Amino acid sequence: MKNQDLYNYILEIADNSLILGQQLGELTGHGPSLETDIACTNISLDLFGQVRSYFQYAGKVAEDGRSEDDIAMLRKERDYKNVLLVEQPNTNFAYTIARQFLFDVFHLLFLTELEKSKDLTLSAIAKKSIKEVRYHTRFSTDWVKRLGDGTEESQAKMQEAINDLWTYTNELFQVTSTCKNMVDQGIGVDVSKLKETYYQKIGEVLTESKLQVPDLKYFQKGGKEGIHTEHMGYILAELQYMQRAYPNMEW
Amino acid sequence: MKNQDLYNYILEIADNSLILGQQLGELTGHGPSLETDIACTNISLDLFGQVRSYFQYAGKVAEDGRSEDDIAMLRKERDYKNVLLVEQPNTNFAYTIARQFLFDVFHLLFLTELEKSKDLTLSAIAKKSIKEVRYHTRFSTDWVKRLGDGTEESQAKMQEAINDLWTYTNELFQVTSTCKNMVDQGIGVDVSKLKETYYQKIGEVLTESKLQVPDLKYFQKGGKEGIHTEHMGYILAELQYMQRAYPNMEW
Repeated sequence: MKNQDLYNYILEIADNSLILGQQLGELTGHGPSLETDIACTNISLDLFGQVRSYFQYAGKVAEDGRSEDDIAMLRKERDYKNVLLVEQPNTNFAYTIARQFLFDVFHLLFLTELEKSKDLTLSAIAKKSIKEVRYHTRFSTDWVKRLGDGTEESQAKMQEAINDLWTYTNELFQVTSTCKNMVDQGIGVDVSKLKETYYQKIGEVLTESKLQVPDLKYFQKGGKEGIHTEHMGYILAELQYMQRAYPNMEW
Repeated sequence: MKNQDLYNYILEIADNSLILGQQLGELTGHGPSLETDIACTNISLDLFGQVRSYFQYAGKVAEDGRSEDDIAMLRKERDYKNVLLVEQPNTNFAYTIARQFLFDVFHLLFLTELEKSKDLTLSAIAKKSIKEVRYHTRFSTDWVKRLGDGTEESQAKMQEAINDLWTYTNELFQVTSTCKNMVDQGIGVDVSKLKETYYQKIGEVLTESKLQVPDLKYFQKGGKEGIHTEHMGYILAELQYMQRAYPNMEW
């Protein structure tokens, strides 16, 4: 492949939206209320829409005849580069919201920088996506506040979810060699520079929500290198099943 | 295929063990206690062992070069002929036990008849399997009693599981056209004749366990014709994933 770095970089960005969208899609029709059910499904569809743009571009860059569907659904587990955060399960609604919130705040900061990319396709996708992700962030932030500053039970559950998922936040700011090369070419976003703003914004929301900011020294990583948690295999089994059982199918 | 009826009949028998084994396997490492965890895993392995014998035979009958793995893992949903009972989920331990108990009692009656089959391979598989299934039945019966005649909570949960799964019991005795043809040839078991003994045995255990025998007039069916409940797609996605992602793989 002529431009392996750019191809890898697109995956590094888009796989987050793909896997988070798949996890959210699992909740379709499962509530907890009609409003949140539809909201989660809408967010899932937004993310899949972004993924299509990214993977159509990745297909062009790869120049090997693979379609967006092939790239989305026919890779092996090690070839998915999403962060571990987005593959964590819908343990309960607090986990779904915490995962969304911890990703959305990053996602919005990230896209705001990606819009300045020298790569005009990535810049255009970022510009289009920002509007959607701004809504996602508002939705998840509102729910963090509502559950955190809610009943004793909702607060305990929200706090537990934040505590558990906190360990996956640091990976968002890990600079891979792919990312570094793209930054050097003026295409990529130096995610390490987003870290301070991220934790500051997150901290403000948590405090306002009467939640504790976790004080954690050890963090999990691996997703960006293709080393995933045990949940990933099950996600891929469902994500890929139709395409593998009925090769080349289209909806 | 020269002997389509025999092939279909083998699937009708073996798919029950395959799907029940897969469902039990999901619990491996998830307790609720070490003893039950290992027991469920052992039962799962027994069932898979039986499935291998059946599908090796089905491969011979089909004469189309397919291996036991191909038959087990590369069919479409509609081509699986298991009863709906065995594909019901592990909602909680009471459901796992109720599903097992309601199937085991049938399974033992069925194999005792299949041992008399004119088909010597089926007879031999039945003979070998009976010993295992006698143990399965003892295990699940013991647990029905322990939970039914246990605490108020365990009794309520056990009763709920029995009530919910009861609707799938009648399908066990449905005589398909395949089954009828095999019975006519002295190969198959007339399952309709097992029904009275089955409900009598089940009733005795439930009564002894201080559980109510459900009084239900409507029953679900479809599995034997390949029309499955919503759970089946997820089961197959996991069951088939490795074989579809890595075609022709062997362990």
